[in-house]
Amino acid sequence: MAEVKSDIEIARAAKKKPIMEIGAKLGIPAEHLLPYGHDKAKISAAFIAEQKGRKDGRLILVTAINPTPAGEGKTTTTVGLGDGLNRIGKKAVVCIREASLGPCFGVKGGAAGGGYAQVIPMEDMNLHFTGDFHAITSAHNLLAALIDNHIYWGNEQNIDIRRVAWRRVMDMNDRALRQIVGSLGGVANGYPRETGFDITVASEVMAILCLSTDLKDLEKRLGNIIIAYRRDKTPVFARDIKADGAMTVLLKDAMQPNLVQTLENNPAFVHGGPFANIAHGCNSVVATTTALKLADYVVTEAGFGADLGAEKFFDIKCRKAGLKPDAAVIVATARAMKMNGGVKKEDLGKENVEAVRKGCANLGRHVLNVKKFGVPVVVAINHFIADTEAEIQAVKDYVATLGAEAILCRHWAQGSAGIEELAHKVVELAESGKSQFSPLYPDDMPLFEKIETIAKSIYHAGEVIADKSVRDQLRTWEEQGYGTLPICMAKTQYSFSTDPNLRGAPTGHTVPVREVRLSAGAGFVVVITGEIMTMPGLPRVPSSEKIFLNDEGFIEGLF
Amino acid sequence: MAEVKSDIEIARAAKKKPIMEIGAKLGIPAEHLLPYGHDKAKISAAFIAEQKGRKDGRLILVTAINPTPAGEGKTTTTVGLGDGLNRIGKKAVVCIREASLGPCFGVKGGAAGGGYAQVIPMEDMNLHFTGDFHAITSAHNLLAALIDNHIYWGNEQNIDIRRVAWRRVMDMNDRALRQIVGSLGGVANGYPRETGFDITVASEVMAILCLSTDLKDLEKRLGNIIIAYRRDKTPVFARDIKADGAMTVLLKDAMQPNLVQTLENNPAFVHGGPFANIAHGCNSVVATTTALKLADYVVTEAGFGADLGAEKFFDIKCRKAGLKPDAAVIVATARAMKMNGGVKKEDLGKENVEAVRKGCANLGRHVLNVKKFGVPVVVAINHFIADTEAEIQAVKDYVATLGAEAILCRHWAQGSAGIEELAHKVVELAESGKSQFSPLYPDDMPLFEKIETIAKSIYHAGEVIADKSVRDQLRTWEEQGYGTLPICMAKTQYSFSTDPNLRGAPTGHTVPVREVRLSAGAGFVVVITGEIMTMPGLPRVPSSEKIFLNDEGFIEGLF
Repeated sequence: MAEVKSDIEIARAAKKKPIMEIGAKLGIPAEHLLPYGHDKAKISAAFIAEQKGRKDGRLILVTAINPTPAGEGKTTTTVGLGDGLNRIGKKAVVCIREASLGPCFGVKGGAAGGGYAQVIPMEDMNLHFTGDFHAITSAHNLLAALIDNHIYWGNEQNIDIRRVAWRRVMDMNDRALRQIVGSLGGVANGYPRETGFDITVASEVMAILCLSTDLKDLEKRLGNIIIAYRRDKTPVFARDIKADGAMTVLLKDAMQPNLVQTLENNPAFVHGGPFANIAHGCNSVVATTTALKLADYVVTEAGFGADLGAEKFFDIKCRKAGLKPDAAVIVATARAMKMNGGVKKEDLGKENVEAVRKGCANLGRHVLNVKKFGVPVVVAINHFIADTEAEIQAVKDYVATLGAEAILCRHWAQGSAGIEELAHKVVELAESGKSQFSPLYPDDMPLFEKIETIAKSIYHAGEVIADKSVRDQLRTWEEQGYGTLPICMAKTQYSFSTDPNLRGAPTGHTVPVREVRLSAGAGFVVVITGEIMTMPGLPRVPSSEKIFLNDEGFIEGLF
Repeated sequence: MAEVKSDIEIARAAKKKPIMEIGAKLGIPAEHLLPYGHDKAKISAAFIAEQKGRKDGRLILVTAINPTPAGEGKTTTTVGLGDGLNRIGKKAVVCIREASLGPCFGVKGGAAGGGYAQVIPMEDMNLHFTGDFHAITSAHNLLAALIDNHIYWGNEQNIDIRRVAWRRVMDMNDRALRQIVGSLGGVANGYPRETGFDITVASEVMAILCLSTDLKDLEKRLGNIIIAYRRDKTPVFARDIKADGAMTVLLKDAMQPNLVQTLENNPAFVHGGPFANIAHGCNSVVATTTALKLADYVVTEAGFGADLGAEKFFDIKCRKAGLKPDAAVIVATARAMKMNGGVKKEDLGKENVEAVRKGCANLGRHVLNVKKFGVPVVVAINHFIADTEAEIQAVKDYVATLGAEAILCRHWAQGSAGIEELAHKVVELAESGKSQFSPLYPDDMPLFEKIETIAKSIYHAGEVIADKSVRDQLRTWEEQGYGTLPICMAKTQYSFSTDPNLRGAPTGHTVPVREVRLSAGAGFVVVITGEIMTMPGLPRVPSSEKIFLNDEGFIEGLF
């Protein structure tokens, strides 16, 4: 077997082009590219505004089966497909999410893709990048400081200090900050109250930035954030304490999408990174809509499996931004099928066609689900070295029975040359005009019915249960005018059910709604169906212990 | 009277040159300038390393009288003098500090200079700039998370959790975070303990970054940070929990100095910004030493008045970095002399030569103090519109009695054309070879004697008093090998004494040492002589309420 290079070795050996050249490929003049070093740039808001009248390219969603420890390679396939489309003569842009800094010091940092399908510069993308997440942290915490300051100076808005909804954030895995009592130390420091920190990607400001169409829209949404409730239960908004203007100023640069490149020097937009459970888990609307103006094809991805990621992409992002996806790619691997078929991780190296066949139920469910949104589907089998021909064929045969096609892709090992067939197929589907996209439920369906629709139609659950308090809360929001918002499901990503150990394609299970939260600025109702951790901790031996700069100035231990 | 434009109007009307052109003036090749937009860049560490063998230019310190509400214009004069030196044919670079983000939302943001002596882009410099402070915040808080994580997983280092010395930081004015109890919520969140947040500029990581000569030195100093004590009182260092490598990685880019420009398109380095009380209040050593390699003249400033700022510049920064200043400029104004002479702020508009003469005692003390370091001195009278000729003459006459010269400067109104005389005088002093710089006290003087030396020689105090516990602590540190460190005085900036209301040139006062702290990474002992606020609060009506983006995309209300 040929030597296998690590992702970081491949990334470091890449011949990067100056970012101005990458921008020029898309017709972005140098004065509208704001460089961050020589390999990253922001695209100016002015240039973006100028593109308004232009025709949109085709939008391709890359989604996946439920994630397993075997690894699926959704981002790798997104990047590979972008390169593949460029290879066959289409002008294509990849749109992916930014990585969070904090978790890199707990476990190893995530590459943006893998093998010969990566976005670079990998180190920067795992560290401060262009500062977007820091700006979001600042804007979020400015609002928090203004709330406590408002209370301190007399509480003109009559905030019930037991019902402050806005916490603070930090882009760090720090369990000690999950739950704190602040404002201790006497009169000069304010009114002691219980609060805490979430990780920055869980901030509603992050979700807002990713759903806003421009700075005006951003400012309006920031103003709509519910920061607290009064004694009479009426909400207090960020605009009530005049926080929206300053928050917008802090986010001015962060709103501009980041341009980087793939290993094959094709353009990639990396912008925004909301949590995929308590938020919608997609890159920014601004990045996607801008890319659509500049390219024939835009390949983007959504968080987790298609049950969570694609559903939110369609029902939240596409609905709100008026996007019409032309095709969807569902990424699967023979290994993951085997795990879904009951094989343990340590036995994945052995051929097991029967287990592959059995595990395909999970893939099949996702294929049929995505079709419910009216979007044509193709399955990408991301090739792993130990896969056997019989296993691959089993997946192909299974997918054929669903009226779809599964295509073997070798982009991890070969770059764009290994994914030409998929690229051609995507073009065929997208240009067939077959896409008849529509969201799963209409805006005017009652909130609880929306939850039931998702649970039954996508998860194949038997019922949704919720306490009276939850149902009452949903009704109150409907009365307050929030009934037309879409639902943002927070559920385990490992199963169609709420039990992470239930692989395959379970049916008839119960979805218990533990809690609902209103993200009035982002514009969705979060429905929590399990333990949702919004501030991770560090492990016993955090990866930070092995991270350092070597004598050549390269970062060791981050990957 | 001609119309007076605001600083921001002048800054916005400036004709900025591309930052690559500004760098080229200093001989920095484009590939060694890492751009942040088109008007900011970092100078690569590789380029800096290459300059090692080159001859140094002349170093000029700009310092001031004790600050008064009248305003002195130290940064304005620093920038003006840089432009003035360029105007008379010297290649000059200005080195100043970066601004802190948080305070801009409380009171109006600070310009970098004023009138026609400013550094631009002003908006960016008051917001995220090149992300240095965010990187410092991240590195500081990573260490904090690692400490609590270490305790959580078994506390192998036997940290006494009552004696954790490392707090967290945020670049925000947030009084609610001054004192908190963290790790609440049960077993999964750790051991509850009292802690709190300081503002980022107060972080020891900031002081370390500003005193480190390169990344290796940075890593060593970060490792030397004392994070806590054990039950047996022995210190636990950051290196003991293996935090130094990852912190260095987070600070890799932040260590590279930032290049921007003055209104007259001359190069300015803006890098680092440690608190001027619990830290040393100077821009980074890397920026200053790099500028000295690239220019004939480097003009830099120190925080607050000369009693604090210049003393720390000489005794900490110059001592540690081996810098030899060639001349010092002390900035004064006729208005400030009047205030020192007893005039109230509302009466500053009226001529009062007698008060000016009386107030000159403050200026005179600073002139003589700076001379004690062996550095030749010139006084810059920063001209204000309402100053009268008689008042200016009174200052000049007074300074002449001290064997020095006071020169009227009109750079605020006229830019470099208004400060030519000062520029020529500075060149004359610097090239006279008269500078015989030496710090005030030797390394091997006992710590308490160092404090007494500063208090008596610079403040003209009668005595220094301290509890036995403070003296014992200093002795313990001497025994542990920290006795050779310099002292970093934390004293009110408004007076030579510890009473902020005592203007002029008091003598014989008592300096009470309330507390001492060891910054073992930065390499100094902080001596606290009053209330030192390390986390500011927001006012009743924070300036954030008036900050917004206008329809042209300009920021309103920040200045």
